[in-house]
Amino acid sequence: MTAPSAVKAALTSQAIETPSWAYGNSGTRFKVFAQPGVPRDPREKLDDAAQVHRHTGVAPTVALHIPWDRVDDYAALARHADDLGLRLGAINANVFQDDDYKLGSVCHPEAAVRRKALDHLFECVDIMDATGSRDLKLWFSDGTNYPGQDDIRARQDRLAEALTAVYERLGDDQRILLEYKFFEPAFYTTDVPDWGTAYAHCLKLGPKAQVVVDTGHHAPGTNIEFIVALLLREGKLGGFDFNSRFYADDDLMVGAADPFQLFRIMYEVVRGGGLDPAAGVAFMLDQCHNIEPKVPAIIRSVMNVQEATAKALLVDRDALAAAQASGDVLGANAALMDAFSTDVRPLLAEVRADAGLDPDPVAAYHRSGWAEKITEERKGGQQAGWGA
Amino acid sequence: MTAPSAVKAALTSQAIETPSWAYGNSGTRFKVFAQPGVPRDPREKLDDAAQVHRHTGVAPTVALHIPWDRVDDYAALARHADDLGLRLGAINANVFQDDDYKLGSVCHPEAAVRRKALDHLFECVDIMDATGSRDLKLWFSDGTNYPGQDDIRARQDRLAEALTAVYERLGDDQRILLEYKFFEPAFYTTDVPDWGTAYAHCLKLGPKAQVVVDTGHHAPGTNIEFIVALLLREGKLGGFDFNSRFYADDDLMVGAADPFQLFRIMYEVVRGGGLDPAAGVAFMLDQCHNIEPKVPAIIRSVMNVQEATAKALLVDRDALAAAQASGDVLGANAALMDAFSTDVRPLLAEVRADAGLDPDPVAAYHRSGWAEKITEERKGGQQAGWGA
Amino acid sequence: MTAPSAVKAALTSQAIETPSWAYGNSGTRFKVFAQPGVPRDPREKLDDAAQVHRHTGVAPTVALHIPWDRVDDYAALARHADDLGLRLGAINANVFQDDDYKLGSVCHPEAAVRRKALDHLFECVDIMDATGSRDLKLWFSDGTNYPGQDDIRARQDRLAEALTAVYERLGDDQRILLEYKFFEPAFYTTDVPDWGTAYAHCLKLGPKAQVVVDTGHHAPGTNIEFIVALLLREGKLGGFDFNSRFYADDDLMVGAADPFQLFRIMYEVVRGGGLDPAAGVAFMLDQCHNIEPKVPAIIRSVMNVQEATAKALLVDRDALAAAQASGDVLGANAALMDAFSTDVRPLLAEVRADAGLDPDPVAAYHRSGWAEKITEERKGGQQAGWGA
Amino acid sequence: MTAPSAVKAALTSQAIETPSWAYGNSGTRFKVFAQPGVPRDPREKLDDAAQVHRHTGVAPTVALHIPWDRVDDYAALARHADDLGLRLGAINANVFQDDDYKLGSVCHPEAAVRRKALDHLFECVDIMDATGSRDLKLWFSDGTNYPGQDDIRARQDRLAEALTAVYERLGDDQRILLEYKFFEPAFYTTDVPDWGTAYAHCLKLGPKAQVVVDTGHHAPGTNIEFIVALLLREGKLGGFDFNSRFYADDDLMVGAADPFQLFRIMYEVVRGGGLDPAAGVAFMLDQCHNIEPKVPAIIRSVMNVQEATAKALLVDRDALAAAQASGDVLGANAALMDAFSTDVRPLLAEVRADAGLDPDPVAAYHRSGWAEKITEERKGGQQAGWGA
Repeated sequence: MTAPSAVKAALTSQAIETPSWAYGNSGTRFKVFAQPGVPRDPREKLDDAAQVHRHTGVAPTVALHIPWDRVDDYAALARHADDLGLRLGAINANVFQDDDYKLGSVCHPEAAVRRKALDHLFECVDIMDATGSRDLKLWFSDGTNYPGQDDIRARQDRLAEALTAVYERLGDDQRILLEYKFFEPAFYTTDVPDWGTAYAHCLKLGPKAQVVVDTGHHAPGTNIEFIVALLLREGKLGGFDFNSRFYADDDLMVGAADPFQLFRIMYEVVRGGGLDPAAGVAFMLDQCHNIEPKVPAIIRSVMNVQEATAKALLVDRDALAAAQASGDVLGANAALMDAFSTDVRPLLAEVRADAGLDPDPVAAYHRSGWAEKITEERKGGQQAGWGA
Repeated sequence: MTAPSAVKAALTSQAIETPSWAYGNSGTRFKVFAQPGVPRDPREKLDDAAQVHRHTGVAPTVALHIPWDRVDDYAALARHADDLGLRLGAINANVFQDDDYKLGSVCHPEAAVRRKALDHLFECVDIMDATGSRDLKLWFSDGTNYPGQDDIRARQDRLAEALTAVYERLGDDQRILLEYKFFEPAFYTTDVPDWGTAYAHCLKLGPKAQVVVDTGHHAPGTNIEFIVALLLREGKLGGFDFNSRFYADDDLMVGAADPFQLFRIMYEVVRGGGLDPAAGVAFMLDQCHNIEPKVPAIIRSVMNVQEATAKALLVDRDALAAAQASGDVLGANAALMDAFSTDVRPLLAEVRADAGLDPDPVAAYHRSGWAEKITEERKGGQQAGWGA
Repeated sequence: MTAPSAVKAALTSQAIETPSWAYGNSGTRFKVFAQPGVPRDPREKLDDAAQVHRHTGVAPTVALHIPWDRVDDYAALARHADDLGLRLGAINANVFQDDDYKLGSVCHPEAAVRRKALDHLFECVDIMDATGSRDLKLWFSDGTNYPGQDDIRARQDRLAEALTAVYERLGDDQRILLEYKFFEPAFYTTDVPDWGTAYAHCLKLGPKAQVVVDTGHHAPGTNIEFIVALLLREGKLGGFDFNSRFYADDDLMVGAADPFQLFRIMYEVVRGGGLDPAAGVAFMLDQCHNIEPKVPAIIRSVMNVQEATAKALLVDRDALAAAQASGDVLGANAALMDAFSTDVRPLLAEVRADAGLDPDPVAAYHRSGWAEKITEERKGGQQAGWGA
Repeated sequence: MTAPSAVKAALTSQAIETPSWAYGNSGTRFKVFAQPGVPRDPREKLDDAAQVHRHTGVAPTVALHIPWDRVDDYAALARHADDLGLRLGAINANVFQDDDYKLGSVCHPEAAVRRKALDHLFECVDIMDATGSRDLKLWFSDGTNYPGQDDIRARQDRLAEALTAVYERLGDDQRILLEYKFFEPAFYTTDVPDWGTAYAHCLKLGPKAQVVVDTGHHAPGTNIEFIVALLLREGKLGGFDFNSRFYADDDLMVGAADPFQLFRIMYEVVRGGGLDPAAGVAFMLDQCHNIEPKVPAIIRSVMNVQEATAKALLVDRDALAAAQASGDVLGANAALMDAFSTDVRPLLAEVRADAGLDPDPVAAYHRSGWAEKITEERKGGQQAGWGA
C-alpha cells in the first residue's frame, strides 16, 4: 500500500488543465443558454481559470482554442496568465467551424480546402512557439453523413498527409495529441473514430505523436480503462480530455455519470506509471456546462478527478497483486473496491489545508464573491461561446 | 399476395407530410452550414414543399413549427398553401428555445415557467383552429443533466398536469401526438424517454392522445417495428417522425442508414392496418439536411418511404402466414426477404407515370431549374434555420 | 435528513431474497465451469442460503425455480427452510428448457405447446399454494430470431391469453411478477422486451400483476432509476432482480459494475416509498457466479445492496428538495453525491453488531469453515446447474 | 462500371468457407435445441458441407475446430474432403472449454495453464501441417469478469508472449488470423476486444499475422466497413467471420439482420482489392443455427454473401468517384444505393446456370432429399455440438 505521505505528495503534484472554452457559453444544437458573467474575451477566461486554480491549487494551466482564443499578441496573453499564476497549455486547433469545412477539413475531397485547414494547423504551431505550449491537440470533425459520400480510404490518405506535414513542423519539445471520437458531428463515418485509428497514425508519425483519450468519445459499453492500459503499455498515451456521459458525447462534469469508471481509469493511470509527470500524460478537462454555473462546475470537476486519483492511489497494490496471482477473484475485486468505497474527502481536505487552501473549494468560491463580481462587471460586449 | 392493382392504389393514396423546418438551415452543436437558396419565411418554405409534392405526388401537407413559422395571419398562410396545392399539417410546439426553459418547460420546477410553456401549447391549439390542423405534435426536451438535479416523479406529475390541460382544450377532431426521445438535449433523465412513458400518459388522457414514433429516438438496438406493432395493437399509434440514424438522433434521410429496418417498420404498419387512412397514422418526415441540398434530399426521403411501403405491400402474406404457422423459420424469413430483395423502382415509376408524374422525381427536380431559381431569388434577408 | 436511528431501522428490516439457482453452477454458452461443493439438490441449496442469511441477517427468503427445484414434497422443503431460519420465496417458472419451446412457450404458434407451457404455469401456482409463496415470477424467453419468423402481434395476443388464464388462477394474496428483457435468448424480437410491454399487460390484468425490473435487462444507456420511479408512481413496481452488467445480461454481482447506478436506483426506491414493506417491492438477486465462489459472492452481493440502500437513506432530502426547487443544479447534485461519497461500511458494521452479527460477513463466512465442509461432503451426485 | 462479364467472373471465383461447427447443434446459455440429422463426427460434417458446395458452387473449403474436430488421421479426413470435392480450411483453436481455462488461457495468471494453452496452439499448427491449411484462426475468450480480477497490462504481456511463440512456429505459407471480440464470455475486460488491439499485436508479430473481422464482434453502432477499409489499407485484413446480429454476438445468418451493412462491407472489400484472391482475404462463415435447419441456413448464408458481393461489384465506381470528387453528397449516395436497390437474384441465377448449377440452391437442396436422408441415417451416436 502506498504510504500516506506518498499519496499526499502525488495528489499535491497533480496538475489538471482546464479548457478556455468551458468558461464560455455552450449548448446543444437545440439551444445555447446564456449565463450571466460569462467571459467576453480570452483574458476574462483566464481570470475565471485563475479562480479555479486559486481554490483547488491543481489547475495551473489553461488550454486555448484557436480561433476562439485568437489574439494579436500571444506573449501578452501569456504574461496575463503569468500575472494570474497560470500558464498557457495545449493549443486546440479548430478546423470545423468555417463554411469551407462542410465536407471535411484535412480529409476534404478538394485540395484547396485541405490546404486551408493545414495552414490553420501551421498557425497553431506558430502560436505554440509564441506561448511555449508543448501540445497541439488535434480533433478532426471530418467524416461523412451518407454511405458513398466520400471514399473512406482516400480520406485516410489525405489525413496521413496532413498529419505528416504538421509533425514535420513540430519543434523538439512539441507534440501532436491526436484525438479520436466515435461520432458527431459526422453521422456515418468519422475519419478518426477510435483509438486504433489514432494509434495507427501516431505510430507512423513517430514519438512526438500521441493519442489523447476523451472519456466521452466511445461506443456504448467500451472499456476505457482497458484502452488506457494499452496505450500506456505502448508508450502512446498523450493525455485525457475528461468529461462524463450517459449517452453520447454529453460533455458533463467528469465523474458525474460514473465515478467508479473514473476511478478505474485513474487506477490504470497509476498502475501504468502515468501519474509520474515524466510520463507526459496531460490531464485535461473538456466539458460543456450548459445549464450549471461554469466556474463552480469546473472546480467541482477538478475535485472529482482528485477524488478518483486519491482512491486509485489508495489501492493496496500488494494485496491486489497477491489476490490476482492466486486467482482469488473475489479477493482481488474486494481489494480494488475497498479503495473505491473509502471516503477520500477528509484526505483531500487535509492536502488542501497543508497547501494553505480552504479545505472546501466550492464553499470558498461561493464566499469569494467572484460570481457576483463578474455578473456585475461583465455586462455588454459579446459573451464567449462555442462559435465565438 | 396483394393484387398489383391494390398495391398501386395503396401507393397512390399514401400521404407523407414534410416538415417546414427541413427546408431551413440546420446543423449540429458544432456548426450550422448555410446553404444558398434557403427560405427566409414560412411562405418560401411552402414554395419548396410544393416542389416536393409536384414531383412525388404524395407529399400534400406541410407540418409547421411554432414559433419558427409564426405568422400574423394563419388563414393567409393556409391560402398560400392551397394555392400551391398543399395543406397545412401538424402543428409542432416548441418549448425548448426560450431562455426560461433552461431547466425544462412543462416539467420545470417553477410554476411560472410551466405556465408560460402551457400558454404556448394553448397558442398552438389556437393555431390549429385557424389552420384546420388535426394534430398537435408535442416533443418535450424536458429533462435533467445531473443525478439529483430535479425530482423525477414530481416532473411526471407536472407533465401529466400540463398534458391534461392541453387535452381538455382540444376540439373534437384534434389530437395530441406525444413524442418520446431517448436523450438529447437532456443527458441524464428525459421526461418522456421511451414509448412506455408516452403510452402511459396517452392512455390516461384518452382516445385523442396518441404516441408518435420518431425513428431516431431509441436506445441502440431497439426493435422499432415491435413498438409499432404494439402501438397499433393498442390503437395508440398516432404517427411517425421518419428519419434515419447510425448513432443517436442523427436526423439523416429516412432509409439512408438501414433500409431493411424501414421496410420492417412499414411491413408492421401494413400488417396492423396502419396504411388505411382511417387508422389515423400520420406519416411525417423529421430530418435535418445539414450538408446535402434540402429539396432534393426531401424528395429522395419521400421516395425512400414509398419504396419501403411498396416492398411491404409486396410481401406474400399468405405464404408468410403459412410458413409462420408451421414453424418454418427459414421459409417465413424467405417470404419476407423476397419482398425486400425486389427492385420496386420500376413499379413506382409506373405509379408515377400513371399519375402524370415524371417517373424519376429527382431528375425532374434537377431539370426544373428550381434550385437555380431560389439561389438567385432568395438573396438578402434572414435564412430560416432551427433557431429562426 | 433521515435520523440515524431511522436509517438503522430501515437497514435492519430490509429483506433481500436470494435465488436457489445462484448456488448452482452456471456459465455462458461457451462453458459451464464446475465448482467444488456445489449443491446437488434443493435442500443443499437452502443449506447454502442459510449461510448467507446467517452472516448478513437480511436474506431470510429463497426463490425457487421450477423444474430445477422440483421436489415431491414442498411442505417438507418448506419445513427444511424453516429449520434453517429461512422461508421459501418467489416461484420462478421455466418455460424455456424443454425441446418443445424452441419457437416459444405461451407465444408459440402451436396451441399444443402453448397449452403445455400454461400447464407448467398452473403447476407453479399449485406449488405456491403448497409453499405459501406470494409471487409467481414470469420470465418468458419467447421471441424470434429472424424477421418474418412469426407474427409479432399474434404473439402478443397469445401472451395476453396465457397471462389472463394464470391471473385468474391466482389466490387473493398471490401476484404475478412479470419480467421484461431486452434480448437473449431470442435475437430479433423478444415478446416482453421492455418495461412498457410488461406494464401494458399488467395494467390490463389488474392489481395482482406487477412489473419486475431485472437490472441487467435493458438497452445500452437506459436510465433504470427513471423506470423505477415511474413504476412506483403507477403502483406497478413488483420487485427487482438485482445483478450487474457491463454489456448485456452479464448477471454479475449487483453493484460490481456500476455502484453509483445501484445507489441511484435505491434512492428512487426510498423516494418513492418502495422500501416500506407495505409497498410490496420484492428485492431479489438474480445472478450467475460463473467464475467466483458462489456463497461468498452472494454474501458480497447482499452487502452491496445494503450499502447502496444505506447511502440512499443518508441523502439529505430536505437539502436536496430545496436545491431542486430553486433550480440549483450543482447544489442538488452535490446533495446526492454527498451521500454517495460517504463510506457506509462503518454504519453497516454497527447495524450488524447491533443484531448480534459479525460486522464483516465475508470474513465470518471464511472463518466458518463452510466452504471446506461442503467441498468435502458434497462429493458424488449431480451438481445443480442451470439445466439441472 | 464493371463489365457484366467481369462481375460474373468475380462471382464465379469467389470462395466462401463454411465452418464445421455450424453443422452441429448450438444454442444459448439457456438451452441447446437438438435437431434431427445433425452430424455425429467430422466426416458427417464434411458430408453436409459438400451439400452446400454442391448447390452453391462457391463453398469449397471447410474450417475445422480443434478439439471438436480432432481425429486420429487428418490425412484421411483430408482425403474424405477431397472425395467430396472439398478441401480443409482454417484450423480454429479452442482454448476456452477446459476447466483449467476458467480464468483464461494464454493470459491466465498461472504459467502452467498458459503452457497448456500454448501446447494446444502448437498442436493446431501440427494439424495445419497435416491438413495443408494456411490459416490458424485464434480467438481467445480470455478476459475478466470483475474490476481488479487481474492485471490488464500483465495479461497483454502474456498474450504477446504466446502469440510470438506461435508465430515462430508457423511455416512459410501459414498465417495467424487473430480475432477480436467486444465481450462474451468475459464481461468486464476481454484481452483482445477490438481491432486496434488485434492490429497492434499483428503489427509486432509480422506479415504472417493478420486481423480477422467477425461481423458480430463490435460495440453497438460500430462502423465495420470503416475497419475493413482501414485494415485493407494497412495490409492487415486476413479475413472475415461472417454472421449477423441485432444485439450482441447473436451469430445469426449473415445478411439476415442488416443486408445493407453487408453490402457496404463488401463494397469496401471490392474497393480495397480484397476480392482478388491474391489479397489473401478469407471469407468465412461463423454462425449458430440454433432454431433453423442447419444445411439450408448455411446455403442461404452463402447466397446472402454472394448477393452482397454482386451488388458491391455493380456499383458504378466511375460515377461514384465523380460525385465524390465534386462534393455531390446526394449523387454519391445515389450511386451507391442504385447498386444496392438492384435485384441481383436473376444475375446470380445466371451465374449458377452457367456453372451447371440449379439457379435456386435452396429449392434444389430441398428436392435433393438430403434432409430426409440424414434424419433417417444419423440415428444413435452423439450429435456434434459446441461442446462435442
